[in-house]
Amino acid sequence: MFGSSFGNIFKITTWGESHGKGLGVIVDGCPAGLSLSEEDIQVYLDRRKPGQSRYTTKRGESDTVEILSGVFEGKTTGTSISLIVYNKDQHTADYNEIAEYYRPGHADFNFDTKYGFRDYRGGGRSSGRETIGRVAAGAIACKILKQLGITLSSYTLSIGPISIDKKNFDENAIMQNPLYMPDLAAAEKAAEYLEKCMQEKNSSGGIIECVIHGMPTGIGDPVFEKLEANLGKAILSIGAVKGFEIGDGFLVSAATGLSNNDSYQADEQGNIKKVTNHAGGITGGMSDGCDIVFRAAVKPTPSIAATQQTVNKNKENISINIKGRHDPVIVPRAVVVVESMAALTVVDMLFSSMTSQMEDVICFFK
Amino acid sequence: MFGSSFGNIFKITTWGESHGKGLGVIVDGCPAGLSLSEEDIQVYLDRRKPGQSRYTTKRGESDTVEILSGVFEGKTTGTSISLIVYNKDQHTADYNEIAEYYRPGHADFNFDTKYGFRDYRGGGRSSGRETIGRVAAGAIACKILKQLGITLSSYTLSIGPISIDKKNFDENAIMQNPLYMPDLAAAEKAAEYLEKCMQEKNSSGGIIECVIHGMPTGIGDPVFEKLEANLGKAILSIGAVKGFEIGDGFLVSAATGLSNNDSYQADEQGNIKKVTNHAGGITGGMSDGCDIVFRAAVKPTPSIAATQQTVNKNKENISINIKGRHDPVIVPRAVVVVESMAALTVVDMLFSSMTSQMEDVICFFK
Amino acid sequence: MFGSSFGNIFKITTWGESHGKGLGVIVDGCPAGLSLSEEDIQVYLDRRKPGQSRYTTKRGESDTVEILSGVFEGKTTGTSISLIVYNKDQHTADYNEIAEYYRPGHADFNFDTKYGFRDYRGGGRSSGRETIGRVAAGAIACKILKQLGITLSSYTLSIGPISIDKKNFDENAIMQNPLYMPDLAAAEKAAEYLEKCMQEKNSSGGIIECVIHGMPTGIGDPVFEKLEANLGKAILSIGAVKGFEIGDGFLVSAATGLSNNDSYQADEQGNIKKVTNHAGGITGGMSDGCDIVFRAAVKPTPSIAATQQTVNKNKENISINIKGRHDPVIVPRAVVVVESMAALTVVDMLFSSMTSQMEDVICFFK
Amino acid sequence: MFGSSFGNIFKITTWGESHGKGLGVIVDGCPAGLSLSEEDIQVYLDRRKPGQSRYTTKRGESDTVEILSGVFEGKTTGTSISLIVYNKDQHTADYNEIAEYYRPGHADFNFDTKYGFRDYRGGGRSSGRETIGRVAAGAIACKILKQLGITLSSYTLSIGPISIDKKNFDENAIMQNPLYMPDLAAAEKAAEYLEKCMQEKNSSGGIIECVIHGMPTGIGDPVFEKLEANLGKAILSIGAVKGFEIGDGFLVSAATGLSNNDSYQADEQGNIKKVTNHAGGITGGMSDGCDIVFRAAVKPTPSIAATQQTVNKNKENISINIKGRHDPVIVPRAVVVVESMAALTVVDMLFSSMTSQMEDVICFFK
Repeated sequence: MFGSSFGNIFKITTWGESHGKGLGVIVDGCPAGLSLSEEDIQVYLDRRKPGQSRYTTKRGESDTVEILSGVFEGKTTGTSISLIVYNKDQHTADYNEIAEYYRPGHADFNFDTKYGFRDYRGGGRSSGRETIGRVAAGAIACKILKQLGITLSSYTLSIGPISIDKKNFDENAIMQNPLYMPDLAAAEKAAEYLEKCMQEKNSSGGIIECVIHGMPTGIGDPVFEKLEANLGKAILSIGAVKGFEIGDGFLVSAATGLSNNDSYQADEQGNIKKVTNHAGGITGGMSDGCDIVFRAAVKPTPSIAATQQTVNKNKENISINIKGRHDPVIVPRAVVVVESMAALTVVDMLFSSMTSQMEDVICFFK
Repeated sequence: MFGSSFGNIFKITTWGESHGKGLGVIVDGCPAGLSLSEEDIQVYLDRRKPGQSRYTTKRGESDTVEILSGVFEGKTTGTSISLIVYNKDQHTADYNEIAEYYRPGHADFNFDTKYGFRDYRGGGRSSGRETIGRVAAGAIACKILKQLGITLSSYTLSIGPISIDKKNFDENAIMQNPLYMPDLAAAEKAAEYLEKCMQEKNSSGGIIECVIHGMPTGIGDPVFEKLEANLGKAILSIGAVKGFEIGDGFLVSAATGLSNNDSYQADEQGNIKKVTNHAGGITGGMSDGCDIVFRAAVKPTPSIAATQQTVNKNKENISINIKGRHDPVIVPRAVVVVESMAALTVVDMLFSSMTSQMEDVICFFK
Repeated sequence: MFGSSFGNIFKITTWGESHGKGLGVIVDGCPAGLSLSEEDIQVYLDRRKPGQSRYTTKRGESDTVEILSGVFEGKTTGTSISLIVYNKDQHTADYNEIAEYYRPGHADFNFDTKYGFRDYRGGGRSSGRETIGRVAAGAIACKILKQLGITLSSYTLSIGPISIDKKNFDENAIMQNPLYMPDLAAAEKAAEYLEKCMQEKNSSGGIIECVIHGMPTGIGDPVFEKLEANLGKAILSIGAVKGFEIGDGFLVSAATGLSNNDSYQADEQGNIKKVTNHAGGITGGMSDGCDIVFRAAVKPTPSIAATQQTVNKNKENISINIKGRHDPVIVPRAVVVVESMAALTVVDMLFSSMTSQMEDVICFFK
Repeated sequence: MFGSSFGNIFKITTWGESHGKGLGVIVDGCPAGLSLSEEDIQVYLDRRKPGQSRYTTKRGESDTVEILSGVFEGKTTGTSISLIVYNKDQHTADYNEIAEYYRPGHADFNFDTKYGFRDYRGGGRSSGRETIGRVAAGAIACKILKQLGITLSSYTLSIGPISIDKKNFDENAIMQNPLYMPDLAAAEKAAEYLEKCMQEKNSSGGIIECVIHGMPTGIGDPVFEKLEANLGKAILSIGAVKGFEIGDGFLVSAATGLSNNDSYQADEQGNIKKVTNHAGGITGGMSDGCDIVFRAAVKPTPSIAATQQTVNKNKENISINIKGRHDPVIVPRAVVVVESMAALTVVDMLFSSMTSQMEDVICFFK
């Protein structure tokens, strides 16, 4: 219920189902005067659209976005921006079967229990296609951030047991392989691993990392609207994400104060910087001037063709083999979703920081 | 800015600083007719108050709570409940020194940058004492949940490199050791480890686990107000938490669909249950009928007496040794804070689920 | 900024401009299981669409609504409902002129000042067409209320100096005249008055009254979310509304406690009712079991063909005669907008009342 | 339920009952660096405290405010500000009687119906004392506005049938008479009228007007967060207010476009201003550069000593004469409450306007 909006000042509201007429988003709170075209948004949607490689579903969707409101003469007007993507290639027949049972790892049972019935076609609202609205809005957030000198870099850190080697980290490699790994050698191994999963009618999990460069200091609002709290909510709201960590993350549990604290240092110009970044760019709930670094753990695609046990609507225990067109791994297409949710969060929190000092407020209205 | 409230329907707003007059919380949205006394709340506050063991600060605070409003003749009235705890044992002089420099691992530098200055006395609002309001409100949330058959169990999973042995898990042990570990043997080893940290003027991190028993199915609101998203935000808003994971958490990244999916099974009475619980009790953003299981990674206390490098307000690089009374580990006293934030989240999301079905709404108003 | 959403639990978000591609609304928080068709919504939109009489603009729009999401097999699914109406008959050329100056009574100057520029085509987002989203969503709210036994009746109370005679009040008359007056004799006089206004290239104001029947007692949340406060906000958010009053409204200022208080009376069955209804159905911010009665004062259409003085973008003082197709009175088409906003408010506040008593909550989850 | 907060960015949360331990407010979102003392707040509370004249209750309360948090070294720190006023002179015995019946014009019946029981002592949370939190917070809002060059002037426009004569309007007179009328001759007549009401054990209603000087243009957020919508909600949330109007208010219903439109005019320096102000300073939901002028209709005090009919808890029809210490008119003490709510609204909406233009945002973060 009423769970379709995200953000307070820069706020998005999404709609749409996998096999409905389309999907979309309303972006509210975008400042006026941002130059914005459909192409700006399409670039981001193309990073998540299906059919990019053999590791993604074969559903044929161009996911072409249309701006319906909020832009006039190429610039945002300050009013709500409505974006729409029509569905084109629904194979609803593939899904008649799943109407009858509860797929393991999916929310079918929960939907039926909570709402009394469900739109079973392609998972309805719980389909990965739901993220189209997030990415379309995220593209706008990224454009705003870019104008403020803030950029995001997101990529696949690991797929199954295959992790990148940080020594080989290559920003340029990310867009050069279908798995969006910043290490081509690791990407090759991961591809082999995925082939094996596919042969076994199985799927794989993985980890996504996101780095935010250029953050000003002091963004995030103690004590409940801390930056990492809102980033965590944003990322954990993405289907299939089961863990979130910032900076050294779970490793801090075995660390000591001496090894984990980041010392401050002033240079000759009087600029103060942290020497290390165990904190991942957030201290005390606020950005601390270093890069923000966080990771999301993504579970394996739950829809697999291998035989599984489950229960049907008649409460009978049955064996199933799920049909349809499914990605053997969620991670690569989720990279841009993670980036989008992070950008949406950062824009919202940047805007909320504009009234932190009385002096700023006075200057603004003079 | 405006970061002092948490929750939508069951909503809390906290205030107070470490060395100010006191700390407190307003709980808004508590249903009328809940029997509530100061003792109900004190039990929870006592679990986080200082001076419980040699592993906590020696600051002498009884942290006695007073109910100022919202309760009449022993029952909540449905209006806002104001709770207050006065500060008694401030040693502000200990903190004059830290006014002059930026403590590593603390938000001093961020506060000065964002707000122009800061209340440096004991960390002001960024002190761990800020959590008093969370715990006082959490006690009320726990009482509501108990009446609905929902109970929470929280404990220390690890301190530094010392983890509990799940085979030795003993619920009763939790309250029998000052580290709140459900394994007395592990607790003893952890205590030894902490002694070593203290001798080295150092501190330790750790992991807290929380299990929620008795959840109904279908709590949580796709797509942004998912249960794990709100739990994640709640937990990550606690100072020192650097990671959050649910169910198998980060381990899902190396899992496969077959190993990670939880199968459904119907018993002879037609009750449907998951056979395993890799998901940690949340599937598709909604509770799935199993226990909810999540973990939080807590960083080592940043205030340590060992020598550290930092910068003072004159932008000079200096060496410091932090004075004052500090816990060598945050984890044990944070256990009840984690439990409180989880309870607050669950109550709020339970309430938001009451309008999920038209049929329910019709029944309610008849 | 971020002003396109209304409601907390039952929440709408609207988008669209007068001469853009279309207008729409997302309804979030609608319970699952409500039977809903496009026809249900169209009936309400038809009450505000142009071209119904000679007292409305001649812009030719069928305002046909399409449901894009949230409905499956004829029933709401509990997920967000997206509704769209495409614009068909934009005569944008009529508006090139107004791009150059600030129309009196319009927000042109404010838009330019606040956002730096504006979508001048037909008033952009500040056009009366903006209310399409409100009415489409309001139709859903009305349908929910009907199932709970709550119905709304809205009508024109006065146009210019012509008021209805309460003695002649006829509910059936409302839909029998294009001015939606519940008194056909008054409607005829009002029509004559409007003819005169039109001849003089002038326009008229008026008053709308709305009555809500069947409200349960106790809806509304002290102290800030009082029912009249939220109704007031809802109605005052409609363009052209300059006043809102409930029950005896402004007349209470000259009343006394004795004349204004509504006495309670118990009948033989023990049912308690107020004998009079000066309060208009709301006492202490909560519904009191009587009909809710409120009124909205609507200003005359600011776009008139008569000569007016204003300023152009070059800051020159000029005389203007506004072209385009404008209603000589806003009131009749605003009647359904008022009803829609009232219904949206009442649904939202009904839902927020479901957690008022601990006993209710316990019953619900059992 | 959850109705104790007001505002989005500058947000207050109030608590307390008439005969509880005290009342208070948390102000969240106040920028850091505002100089603030208890005296700043006390000045406003003194305007609403009892015992100022023979037209107010004789309850002896100094209503002394204490700042509990959020201020350090005389300046706000950017964290939540907690303010408290302890109750001193509760005569609870006076109210035992009203526990047994439902007072006409009060919310007793609604409270019992909604919450199952009520704190009957002095009206509990529905007492006029509830406004202490609003005024304490309003004092802070007024101080912020003053620094931005915005000032508010509020006064009694009429009491019963006695209105001020606008020709005699004298700003200085407001504080020179206990009825806060800006016309001493009218104040004298109103006092006579109140004497008559008191002799008859009756009470009187009235109208409050508020003018906001110095507003910048463009404050208010279409389409739902319009400035008049939020002012309306703020004012209608005050107990006893039954109507709200802005500018010409209900008079617009009989006006024409020509008579109601405010023409724009440019002076030689190129400053654009409206020639008239029928709109009351808000056009299209945004401030238009003129003074904001609005009025609130306040009902007569419902607690009167004259005999009234009502129902008791046993559902018997009875006659009552209410005891206790009650004001014969609510208006004078409500003047500062109206001013406070207006100031809170304006600060919140000013802050929300800071992200209207991309250009502003870019400048801010550079």
